[in-house]
Parts: sequence; C-alpha cells; structure tokens
Amino acid sequence: MLEQALQYAGQNRERFLNELKDFLAIPSISTDPEHAADMHSAAEWAAAQLRSIGMEHVQILPTGGHPVVYGDWLKAGKDAVTMMIYGHYDVQPPDPLELWTTPPFEASVRGDNLYARGSADMKGQVIASLKAVEAVMKSGDMPINLKWLIEGEEEIGSEHLDDFIKNHKELLACDFCLNMDAGILGENMPSITTGLRGLAYFELRVDGPVKDLHSGLYGGTVHNPAQALAELITGMHDKNAKVTLPGFYDKVRKLSKQDHKDFARLPIKGKTIKEQTGVPALWGEPAFTPAERLGARPTLEVNGLLSGFTGVGSKTVLPAWAMAKISCRLVPDQTPEDTIKQMQKYLKQNAPKDIKWKLTYLHGAGAALTGTDNVGVKALSKALETVWGKKPYFPREGGSIGVVVQLQEHLGVESVLSGFGLPDCDAHSPNEKLHLPTWTKGIDALIHFIYNLK
Amino acid sequence: MLEQALQYAGQNRERFLNELKDFLAIPSISTDPEHAADMHSAAEWAAAQLRSIGMEHVQILPTGGHPVVYGDWLKAGKDAVTMMIYGHYDVQPPDPLELWTTPPFEASVRGDNLYARGSADMKGQVIASLKAVEAVMKSGDMPINLKWLIEGEEEIGSEHLDDFIKNHKELLACDFCLNMDAGILGENMPSITTGLRGLAYFELRVDGPVKDLHSGLYGGTVHNPAQALAELITGMHDKNAKVTLPGFYDKVRKLSKQDHKDFARLPIKGKTIKEQTGVPALWGEPAFTPAERLGARPTLEVNGLLSGFTGVGSKTVLPAWAMAKISCRLVPDQTPEDTIKQMQKYLKQNAPKDIKWKLTYLHGAGAALTGTDNVGVKALSKALETVWGKKPYFPREGGSIGVVVQLQEHLGVESVLSGFGLPDCDAHSPNEKLHLPTWTKGIDALIHFIYNLK
Repeated sequence: MLEQALQYAGQNRERFLNELKDFLAIPSISTDPEHAADMHSAAEWAAAQLRSIGMEHVQILPTGGHPVVYGDWLKAGKDAVTMMIYGHYDVQPPDPLELWTTPPFEASVRGDNLYARGSADMKGQVIASLKAVEAVMKSGDMPINLKWLIEGEEEIGSEHLDDFIKNHKELLACDFCLNMDAGILGENMPSITTGLRGLAYFELRVDGPVKDLHSGLYGGTVHNPAQALAELITGMHDKNAKVTLPGFYDKVRKLSKQDHKDFARLPIKGKTIKEQTGVPALWGEPAFTPAERLGARPTLEVNGLLSGFTGVGSKTVLPAWAMAKISCRLVPDQTPEDTIKQMQKYLKQNAPKDIKWKLTYLHGAGAALTGTDNVGVKALSKALETVWGKKPYFPREGGSIGVVVQLQEHLGVESVLSGFGLPDCDAHSPNEKLHLPTWTKGIDALIHFIYNLK
Repeated sequence: MLEQALQYAGQNRERFLNELKDFLAIPSISTDPEHAADMHSAAEWAAAQLRSIGMEHVQILPTGGHPVVYGDWLKAGKDAVTMMIYGHYDVQPPDPLELWTTPPFEASVRGDNLYARGSADMKGQVIASLKAVEAVMKSGDMPINLKWLIEGEEEIGSEHLDDFIKNHKELLACDFCLNMDAGILGENMPSITTGLRGLAYFELRVDGPVKDLHSGLYGGTVHNPAQALAELITGMHDKNAKVTLPGFYDKVRKLSKQDHKDFARLPIKGKTIKEQTGVPALWGEPAFTPAERLGARPTLEVNGLLSGFTGVGSKTVLPAWAMAKISCRLVPDQTPEDTIKQMQKYLKQNAPKDIKWKLTYLHGAGAALTGTDNVGVKALSKALETVWGKKPYFPREGGSIGVVVQLQEHLGVESVLSGFGLPDCDAHSPNEKLHLPTWTKGIDALIHFIYNLK
C-alpha cells in the first residue's frame, strides 16, 4: 500500500541518513590503485544492503576491473514490469583535500546539506533507491520485478561494464533501467534527463630534451615542451570556441527549430551559470545558448596540466616534458572511436618536429538520447509531479554516463535518467554535498514511481 | 713559490675532495624555507674553511635573507692587486628526486665524475678557489690581497645581495672579482666568459571559476583556466620564435659584423646541443646561430605548469585555476624592470575578460658584459693557457649571475668569469656532476693565476 510505504519512509528517515553516512565513510576511489581494498568493502556493503531489504540472488560478480554488485526480486509475475536499478559505488578522488571544510569521508550535516565525497554522486542516490524499494517491500505489495546493477567503475568510464553487460544479457534483461546519476535541475525543478553527452578522455605528453635543462644554458635553442604543449592546446580551439580537431563536428546532429525551442524553455541560463561558477564572463560558441552548449554541443576541456618546477619559489629549468589531461564531451552521433582518430590526426598535423608527443586514450563513452514516451519516463514524470506539485522539465545534460549507452547498445534497454543531486552539489569538487530536503522528497517520489508502474 | 704551491695541491688532492664531499652533504636549498637551518650550516662551514686557510676578519654577515660569508687577507701591501673571490653556498632544489642514480646530498664518485647537487654549481668551484688560495698561502708568498664574498641566494636571484653590496662598499672595494660560476666550454676548451644574460622570473596565475567544476556540467560555457593560460603562453612567441611582449627587443643591442664573427669562432654548435639534449630538432630564431641565440638574444621560457588533476588515471574536472612559472633571459641593455612592465602590458592587452590573472615577479638580474683587457682576465687567460696548453675561448653565456651586475653597478668592479663546470654538468638537473680531472687542472690554473697577478 502506497500510504503504508510513505509512512515507513517517514518514520525511518534518521536511520536512512545514518546508513548513507556509513556508505560514504568508505573511500571507494576507483581510479586510485591504493584504494582497491576500499572498493571491495563498498561492494560488500552494497550487497549486504540488497540482502537486508529482501533482494535475492545477491552476488558480487567479477569484471576485468572493479566488481559489479547484482541482486534481484522477480516475484511480481510475468506480466509485471521488470525494472533495472542502476547505481555506482565508486567515487571521484577528493583532492584538493585542503579545500574541504570537513574531511571528505566523514559525512557532516551543515544546514540542509550533507557534505561528503559521493554524497550526491552517487551514493546518496543509491541509498534513495534502496530505501524506496525497502519501504515498498515492507508494505508487502511490491508491484514490479527488480534487478540491481551497481558498478564500481563509473568514475573511470565504466570500462569493464561493457563486456560485463555483453556477457550477462539474460541476467540483465529488463524493460528499462532507472538511473539516478543524472541529477535534478533545481530544488523546485523536478527533471528527467533525456540526453547525455559522451566522453573521450586522453593524456597527452610532450617530450623535449632527455632531461631537465638549465634554462640559461639552453633556452633559445630547444623548443620548451611546456610551451609546445601550450601551443598544441591553444590550437585545439578557434577564436569562436569551436574545437578544431579535423572532422570533430561531422556527425554532430543539427538542432531543429523545435530543439531550439525546447532548450529555450529550460531554466539553464547564463546568469545562473555565472552565479554558480563566479566567473567574470561566460565563454563558448556564440551561435548557441548556454543550455544548448551544455546539452547539444561537444566540447574539449583541459582537465590537468603538469610540467617542470611547480613548487614554492623559482627554479630556472627548461623542463624535459609536459603533460595534459584532455577530455572531449561528445553529443549524438559522435563516438569516442572517431574522437581518438580526430585527436591523433590533429596532433600529426600540428605537432612540431622538434618535440615528441604521445597520446594515451584513457576511457570514454558514447552520447545518448532517451524518448519521453518510455513507460518508465511516464511513471516517473507522474510521481515527480505528485510530490513537487509541478510537471517535470526534460533537459539534455552535459555529463556522460557510460552505462546508458552500453545498455542501449547491447540490450536495447533505455534508461530513465533522473536523480536528486542539485546543480550546485559540487560533484567532482571539494565540499560535495547532498541537499537533504530534496533527497527526502526524492525517496517519496520513488515510492510513488514504483506504484505508478503497477 | 709557484712550484711549492703546485706540489702542495698535488699532495693534498684526496683531502680537497673529501672536504668538497663534506660541503656537498649540506642540503643548502635557498628557495625552500624548510632548509633554513641547512643554509646556516653551510655558511658556518664556509666561514670555518676561510679561517682554516688563514683568512682574517671572517664573519657571517646578515642580509634581508640568507647571510653572506666574508673574510679577507690584506697583507700583500698597498701596491698589490686586491682580488675579490665570489662564491655561493646555496644550491638548486634536487627534484625530481626519483631521477637521481645516487642521493643528491651524498656525493658519489663514478668514473671521472663526482655526482651531487651543487658539485658543479658551485660548491666545487668554491672549494677549487679555497684550495688554490690555501696552496699559495702555505707556500708563504701570497702576492695579492684577497677578499671573499660567499652568498646564499644566488639560486634565488641574489635578491638581498644588492642592498648588501650597497651597504658595504668600503668593505668590498677591490680591483676585480673572480667569479667561477660561469663554467668552461669543454674539457679541452678553457674559457673566460665575457657576457652573461640577465633574468626576470615570474609566476602567472589564471583564475576561472571559484572552484573546480564538473567538466560535463559546465564545459562549453566557462573559459577553462588551463586553456586560457595555454593561450596566453602561446601568444608570448610568434612563429619565428620571437618573444611578443611589447617593446621586448627595444633595448637589445644589435650584433656587429665582428660580434657575428666572434660567435662563429665559438665551439657552441647546433649538433652539440642536439647531442647534449637529445631533442629531435633545434628550435629558435632562424636569423641567429645557436651560439648567438644563447649568448646575445633574450628568451622567454616556461619553467613549470600546474593545473587541475595531474595524478594517475582521470578526473573530469574543469579546474578553478592554472599556474605557470615563466622566466625571461635578458641581454644588454634589457632590464628586469622593463621586462616586468612589458609582461604586464602583454597580459593587459591579451588576457580575455572571462578569466582573472595575477602576475607575481619573483626575482631577476640585469645582463652583463666584461672587457678582455681587464687585469684579471689577462692573468687568468695566461694561467689557463699554461695548464691547458692552448689559448682560452671568450664566449658569452646564456645564464644569469646577479652579483656581476650588482658589483658593476655599485662598486664599478668588473667580474672575471670562468669556472670548471662542463656544459653537460647537469647544473639544475638530476645527477649534477663535477668532472674531477678538469677540477684538478682548474685548481692548478688558479694557483698560476694568483702568481700571474704579482
């Protein structure tokens, strides 16, 4: 019974929060080999949760990298909907550590927010799903079949999930997948994301002299690798903020008049982005609005730079090498495979002969679009309207979620993308936070959602 | 007696080397505040050496930063030459530590070389001067007056030495200054440097968003600070490797036909630079030879880059800031003061409005030229010819030595620039080394030099 489930959720709020805090205490940083043991702890923790809320066949299944946590409950009958609930138990690295007000793996409530690495992205979302299902299970009338897929490599591109899905098609078969990793547009702006950008992540290294040189003894005769890298990075955009990789825009879908109208209705405005980021002025392709640049246009970003002497004071060194982390956000119908070739072609055409360069592709994912006539989208839309009292927005988002593309490709399964992390949640930044009132409403909305699927 | 002094040096070679190793064991890294105590130990060590070889009035004199070690011996009479011997007891930071074969502060002999930070630049040179003077003192007929000026801030731009010299004009008055920090052109190429480039060292910081952002959620709407920094760095050179700071070349002296001829005679060739550095091709202003680019042309180098995520793996961050260490090598008649203004003007003209930038001037020094008719140059030239059996070369070098300009400016004293560090000594790099056969010959040459000044 719906009322009973909602009441249960209301009565157990304190415990739900404490369980989330326990989950957040595990520093499950998938990109860092030193945290391998923590990755296992987090997987075990998620498996124990699934068992505790009545799921069956709970298993930690190996992949080529971090394992997948699986569990199901299939007693609603053949005619009932089968929903997969996706989640990831890994988090981003917390650095720069010194910018955190409280330690990233000691969750701390201040005002309406819970601060911790992973609170919004996405352990908070995983707990919201678990607790909504727990509430419905306790009420004794779970109307749908459930399958859980909780991976440990989302923050490093879901590299091994692709093979895992290919090899477990029957186990994972379902009507649609609920993916709460896409966030919400605002506290009072319930939303279901219908498009996601893809990703291609690179490391570019430029090598010059075989060792660091005295800048006075060699400066002026040797191409400085840090300068050469800067030149290569600069050339990757033209003056209109367009990416110059050869063929980069060839497969980018043109926006229709209707697309432009849909984007104009979204509450993503330049003013808000300026406020959220504190930049003196916005940047980007002048022919597109900020919402379009984020949702429908591909980008190229420098994620990191390192070369030479970077400590306090000075060192008159001509560095031996320079390195940049560079990633592209992709839109339909771009693919990471094409982007790798385009980046290599750009470097072959533009890298000077007086340095050596090496491009390493680290990971990536395609872009995705979901239709609004999906059974899951309809049920969730109704649930959000019930709880928030207004129709949800349907944005396309700038982020990338590998599993969405993989499920589409291998199982033909569409993802229903939502979540309760606010745009200012600082996912991937210091002081990541989860807005607790939104989270609480979100659990209620998920309970409504499950009954709407009956 | 000359013969007696040379014999003494020959008999005490082993002890000289051991004393050098002791000096090298002190990690006197002037740029790093954590090594303040080591800086004092190194100054004390140098003062004790001066006393032990018979110098008088030995004192450790305070400056606004690391202290100066002074000592003298003025008993040669009023008509004798008074020579100042300059040295510095500070060294560059040893990082990257992992590239050292043996620890940087545990001097290790392998083959003909002594490996340690400071072995060539310039503790080895300081010991060579001390030991040559010791040998002459022991022979009982020191023909000249001596003053020692051993500073602790050469590697950070001799910032406080300027005021120190201004405030101690009488104490430091002399006929010329021997400065062994300029090196030698090759094992069989004795040399006296007649020109030095100056320096202006900056830190440039670009700030974008107030915090690191999720590159998917904001990428395409905010100017990436790492990209903006790369753009600013790229714009600092044109396609002919010329520096574009406004007015940068205004005061650069044009090379005369004779200058071109003098440079052409130097053994600094492109082929050698390629071999020493391992670069696939040289770089620089096409209108000038490599020797001219190093000796007579100013440059702008990136010494370090830092932004965003630089660890193993990936992080899809749009960084809040990016930083570069940038330094210019200056030639006559450029000044660091002009260069600061030129850099600021460049940034004002070229920095985009969508980021904030901050330029910090860290330190600098003017450029210097020394005439070959100087009494010290003549005496050293003869001494080098005696020991090496060939006339020395007179190069202009690419490095910067602040004290040379300061002595010229405040005391009207010219510096005789030489030394026994080879071009491949890896000063400022891992595995810095001193070629011991050259060092030993150098001590003998300095003994001849002192008697030549009689």
